This record gives sequence, structure tokens and C-alpha cells, in this order.
Amino acid sequence: MEPDIALLTDLYELTMTEAYLAEGQWDEAVFSLFVRRLPARRNYLLAAGLEDALEGLEQLRFRPEDLEWLASLGRFSDRLLSWLERFRFSGDVDAMPEGTPVFAQEPLLEVRAPLPEAQLVETFLLNQLHFQTLVASKAARVVEAAAGRPVMEFGLRRIHGTDAGLKAARAAYLAGVDSTSDVLAGKRYGIPLSGTLAHSYVQVHDDELQAFRDFTRVYPEATLLVDTYDTLRGVQHVIRLARERGEEFRVPAVRLDSGDLLALSRAAREMLDEAGLEQVRLVASGGLDEDKVAELLARGAPLDSFGVGTAMGVSADAPSLDMAYKLVEYAGAPRVKLSEGKVLLPGAKQVYRQEAQDVAHGDVLVRRSDVARGRPLLRPVMRAGRRLVGAMPTLAEARAHARREISRLPPEVRALTPAHPPYPVTVGRELEWARAQQVELWASAP
Amino acid sequence: MEPDIALLTDLYELTMTEAYLAEGQWDEAVFSLFVRRLPARRNYLLAAGLEDALEGLEQLRFRPEDLEWLASLGRFSDRLLSWLERFRFSGDVDAMPEGTPVFAQEPLLEVRAPLPEAQLVETFLLNQLHFQTLVASKAARVVEAAAGRPVMEFGLRRIHGTDAGLKAARAAYLAGVDSTSDVLAGKRYGIPLSGTLAHSYVQVHDDELQAFRDFTRVYPEATLLVDTYDTLRGVQHVIRLARERGEEFRVPAVRLDSGDLLALSRAAREMLDEAGLEQVRLVASGGLDEDKVAELLARGAPLDSFGVGTAMGVSADAPSLDMAYKLVEYAGAPRVKLSEGKVLLPGAKQVYRQEAQDVAHGDVLVRRSDVARGRPLLRPVMRAGRRLVGAMPTLAEARAHARREISRLPPEVRALTPAHPPYPVTVGRELEWARAQQVELWASAP
Repeated sequence: MEPDIALLTDLYELTMTEAYLAEGQWDEAVFSLFVRRLPARRNYLLAAGLEDALEGLEQLRFRPEDLEWLASLGRFSDRLLSWLERFRFSGDVDAMPEGTPVFAQEPLLEVRAPLPEAQLVETFLLNQLHFQTLVASKAARVVEAAAGRPVMEFGLRRIHGTDAGLKAARAAYLAGVDSTSDVLAGKRYGIPLSGTLAHSYVQVHDDELQAFRDFTRVYPEATLLVDTYDTLRGVQHVIRLARERGEEFRVPAVRLDSGDLLALSRAAREMLDEAGLEQVRLVASGGLDEDKVAELLARGAPLDSFGVGTAMGVSADAPSLDMAYKLVEYAGAPRVKLSEGKVLLPGAKQVYRQEAQDVAHGDVLVRRSDVARGRPLLRPVMRAGRRLVGAMPTLAEARAHARREISRLPPEVRALTPAHPPYPVTVGRELEWARAQQVELWASAP
Repeated sequence: MEPDIALLTDLYELTMTEAYLAEGQWDEAVFSLFVRRLPARRNYLLAAGLEDALEGLEQLRFRPEDLEWLASLGRFSDRLLSWLERFRFSGDVDAMPEGTPVFAQEPLLEVRAPLPEAQLVETFLLNQLHFQTLVASKAARVVEAAAGRPVMEFGLRRIHGTDAGLKAARAAYLAGVDSTSDVLAGKRYGIPLSGTLAHSYVQVHDDELQAFRDFTRVYPEATLLVDTYDTLRGVQHVIRLARERGEEFRVPAVRLDSGDLLALSRAAREMLDEAGLEQVRLVASGGLDEDKVAELLARGAPLDSFGVGTAMGVSADAPSLDMAYKLVEYAGAPRVKLSEGKVLLPGAKQVYRQEAQDVAHGDVLVRRSDVARGRPLLRPVMRAGRRLVGAMPTLAEARAHARREISRLPPEVRALTPAHPPYPVTVGRELEWARAQQVELWASAP
């Protein structure tokens, strides 16, 4: 975390905290973090970002210079500033493990803490869970479209900023992408790195064949980019290189990065096969997303793997989720909110996933204290401000969990097209009753 | 900058650098950073991100632990590692000042440096300039739509990650947005902070009126959020509070955050006016973007300011730009690239903006060495790796520059709807000739 991350929050988190302290609103609050509606082209979301969220909760501190600066604004009391100085998150968190498929209205995470603490962490929790869930959900679609062929993530240059660049690589890997071009993501998370070469490399050489000769002298197993001038002439240059090198030719693949990838991949495959280079694979890239990948494969493009960048890393068709962090209980009593189109279910909750023959057929959303059939999805991950032992799987474990959980979804939910009917999420009777009771209470209020 | 930012790069930048060192490709290269095509709903872009880009170029270092980790991969030679250890960017940069309107094919920035240096900084430069230009361009539309009414930025929770959250606040302010909720952006950049309160604050109180009483006791000049249960009952509660407080009532505004904002704003305005509270302003928020703001105002909604979050901070209708960083000259000779649909203009360039009566009527894109009528837009900002004195305006100066430059665009280019015909960018004759010559050279190659 960056050192001044505590200030990366909305001003109103601080002013509300000020008011809570003034009023002595110290009671325990439960906040629920969930997505109100799925984007039109998402049948499910893949929960991600929990590791950063919990690490943030454990480490969040206001440094002396942060407090000095806040004091200089003249908006905050000494009471607030000294509370912030001592701030340590002391609450409990229950959450879905990273890599769990999640649906609308289901909590990804619930926080139980004294009200000012639970309020203050809102912006940071949303900032991390929103983006990572967004990208993991998109990446799961790309992986589905690639139908077992490797996918490389290389969106860093156009993903939004440095933090997102890093986190997108992790979220995509969690969702089943195979490697990333992002060197720092390799270092931080142990994600396999991949990369080829850029057009500029070819351009600085007097001709393309010479560029291929020079690059493979340094990296004999490099994938060669063939579209700098003309894709099929590029393939011819690779074939000439193979003839020159004979037994020593070890180029595993060529990358097609522009033009009609269906026609070019067919022609390239034919040329390579005729030259006896059946082992040279075809990598496609260039503005790809899950739809283009699926269409290319449906039309029989002989492509072996895909490089996907911007569209996946910014979740181009749905660049945000309607994710919220809402108060559902305070001082032991359930709370609602009735803003138009944004009805809230009161109280702490649990989600049960019901399966038969290892395929999920529906979720039930109930009060935390209720029991339902199926597998409970939210687990205790933090108590009294400390991560629980076993709450933090490795990234490899989380990735295996994601693969297993996605494989248990019905095929129409995993598909790229909208599932009709959508995956059923039922609100338990007691929870529905609790909501109705709250609405009635409010309606009869002055 | 985060300490290990040097590794936040694509793997191929390192492997290409390795190959350049092996081949002795040390000559001077010119790379041009530009957007190939504007998104459908952008008549212009607003250049942003230069300050971070130049700071990054000056400060980029590989630390011993970064190098150790790179060495551990077994992919890199000692030659590369010791070159990285000594790496200091020593090149020149010419760029458009932040806040300059820019069109397709026009360089926002050009780098001239020994090839390996110019190559190595690609990913970082794109990562920063892409996102900040993206958001500044979107924010300029929101500001245009608000037609002089203040706009508050509060997207941090759903903007992509921590770095983007911070940079979006800056880019939006540069483009004319008036304030941000992002406390750290206030500290780092001196942007005015604004904030109201959240639904949770209202929910923890037994009733809404009590919540308003309590909050204004701490912050008498707070804008009150009125839609937690029912917007117009919320307005009634504000009116009751005004009666209770009498002379001491200092609430400047109420915030409408859901429902039919046109109907609700009219009804709220009427209620407030009837209660003698003409001075209480109406703030609208809740999923707003430039289209919704423009439509509300066109239909006469009596709204005084706007809170805009996610849609602006992720540039929802166009979450990425087709921005590239391309080699255009090497060892004194122009370079091209002919990939389908991605034709490149060779050589270092300059953009001249031609104006009459202080209104721009067209740009001319020429070789750097050519002269054309009009104002040259790219300026020297870095020489031999050091920022030039005067190259770094303050954010306030850059914001004033943006306002002035946007005001000089033709009205149809500033408008939210597509300009027909689009703003004309002409390629100078010599540059067009240079491109044709390169294509011919390539076509006659073996």
C-alpha cells in the first residue's frame, strides 16, 4: 500500500465520522457490500479483491503528516483527529473467497464493527473490490471464449493507472488467464510472464527478416510478430528464417496483430504447414475481447492462443458495476433504505448455493442467523481486525477455487450470451418478511 | 511514485532492450505518442498526464532488489542488468501542455532518445497519458453539459484502483470540474474538497429529521441528502429544520440522488420556495453523465450543481482510447508501419492550430522541421532527461490553459453530439510525401 492511502477516501467519510463521534454513535454496525444489478452482458460475477481489502483493513493508519494536513483544513475537531491518530480497524469481516461466482444482491463481503470504523473504510473497500471483481468477471468470459486455449493478459498500457494495471493482471489470472506481460505482477504475485516483441523492433531493422534473425539470436524461443508491414509476407520471413536455421529453429509461434484474423490465420496456417512448420503455433491479438475470440473460433480460425489487453483490463463493455456498501444493521436492529430503484435488504446475511450432481441450480439469500440447504458461501475471514488463519489462500489456490466453482455453474450461466431465465437467487422468507416489516415501520413514521 | 514502478512495464520492453544492447542499436530514436482514432462520441480529446509522465521519466530507477529479481528469472544477461542498474532517462521530450485539445493522429508527446531508453519507457508513458487524457476528455463534456453550474467529482469508489482514483480527480479538475470528494487529491493537488453525507448516516438515526438536526449541529453548512426514504418527505424535513433553526439555518443545498430528477427537482424547488427557502440550492447526483445533465437542463430542471462519479471517472461510454507510442524515426531516417488500419506517419512532427478571431478552424500536422501558419502546439518540455524551467505549469495554470483553449474551439466541436464535418486536421504536403516515399521504399523491398 502507498503510505498515504488512509487519505484516499471520500471527504464525507471523515465528516460523518466527525458527526458520529460528536453524537456518541459507537454502536455496532453491519455494512453489506454487494452489486445491485448485473450488467446486461454478465450472467455472474467473479468475486475478487479480498486479499487487498483485508490487508488494507489491517494496515490502515493515519500518519502524523496526514493528520497535520487534515488539521490544516479547519474542518475537523481535535476529537476526530485524535481518534484518527489511534485508528485501528477492530471489526469482523465475513466474505466470499476470491474466485467465487456471485450474483446480484448477494453480499461479497460484510463488515461488523463500531459504526465510525465501519463507515470510514467504505471508499477503500469499494475501490479495491469493485475493480478487481469487474476485471475477474470479464476475464472469466474471455477464458470461456478461448475454450481451453491459453490467454495472455497484456493491457497494462491502457488499463486505468498503475494500481489497476497491477490488480487487473492478478484478477485476470485468478479468473483463469494464463500469463501476463506485466513484469511487476510477475514479481508481486508469481504470475507467469509472457511477451513477444513490438512493431518498433521490426521497424528499426532494415528489413523484417533481419529483425527476426537478430531477435531469435538473443531469444531463440521468441514468438515473432509478423504484421508490421504485411502479415503473410511476415509469415514468409519466418519460413525463410526456419530454412536458414534448420535444426536450430525454435520459434514456437507467430503473432497476428491486425487485419482479418480469420482469413490471415487460415492462410498463415496453410503456409506454415506446407513449409513443414506444423509445430509453429498461431497467436492472435489486436483489440480482442471475448466476442471476437468466440467468433474466430466458431468460424474455425486455426488459432492456438490469444493476447487480450485493453478490452479485458478496462472491462470495455461494462466498465463499472453497480456495487454499493450499505448499512443493513445498527445497534442490533435491521436498517433499510428505500431510495427509488435501490431497495435494500436489512440485516447481516448468508448465501447458500444449492447444487445437484455438482451443478448449481440456485442460490438462497437469508439472514445470517437462518439456515438453508446448500453450501454457505460467506466465510469468517477477519475477527477483531486480524485476518483469520486459513482465510488467505494463495493466488494459486484461489485460482483453482475459481476454476472449480465456475465449472459448477450451469452451462447457460457460463455462456457469453444472456441466460434466460437468469440464474435464480431466492430471498429467504424470513429475510423478505424482515424487509417488509422495515418498510412498514418507515411508512408509519412521522 | 511507488518504489518498484520501474518493473511496472511489459516484459517485451525488457526483452527488446536486451536485443538492442546485443545488436548495438544505440542510435537515436523518435517515438510519437498519439491517438489513432477518436471514440465515436468525442469531437476532441484534452491532453492530460504530462506532469506524471515527465516526473516518471526523471525518477525512473531500477533498485537493487528489482534487478535481483529480474536476474532470478534467468532470461536476462548481465549486460542488460548492469545497463538497467545505470539507467537514467537522458532523452528529449516535446509535448502539448496539459489542457490542450488534441485530435486523432496528432502527437500529444514525442520522445527523442537512444533507442533502448526510448523503448523502455513506453508502457509507463502510455499508462499515465492514456488514462488521464481519457478522463479529462470525458470531464470536459460533463463541464460543457453543466453550462456553468458547478460539477463535483466523486467517483473514487468505482474508478479503477487507487492510482486512477487520484489521477481522475486531477484530470477532471484540469478539465474544469470544480471540486472532488477525494481527500488525497485535495492534499496532493490542492483541489477544493466537497462532500455531503451518505444514506448510512440517515439510516443510523431513528428518523431522517433527527439525522439532519444532528449533522447540521456539527456541520451547519452541510448539503443534506434527502432521498434515503422518500425525496420529497426529505425536503419537508429540511423545511422543518429551517423552521426550528430560524436565523441559524445555514444549509446551502439539498442533494437529490435517485428517482425522476426532473420531476423531483421541480417539486423540491417549489416546496423550498414556498417555504421561503429560495437560497437553498439543488444538487443532483446518482448515475449522472454528460447526457443526463444536458437533458435535465434542456428540460428546465431547476438544478444548481451536479455530483458526477463513476460515469466520468471510468469514461463509461468510451473507457479506452486507441492511443499508441510508435517509432517514427531511427538513426536519422523516418520509419513507417503498414499494419492494416494502423498506418503511421513517419518522422518527428509539429501541430499548428490555425485560428481566426480567436476561434480555431483547423490544425495542420507537419514534419517537425517544417513551418506552417498558426500556433505550434508541441513545446520542448525536457532536454537531456531534465524538465525545462517553465515546462511545468501549476495545476491552476494548466486548468486556466484548458479553459482558454476549449473556449477557442468551434461550438460544434465543443458540443456533446458528433461534429459534422469533424474538426479538420490536414497532413502537410511534405509529411504526406515522406509517408508515400516510405511506403514505396517498403513495397520495393525483398
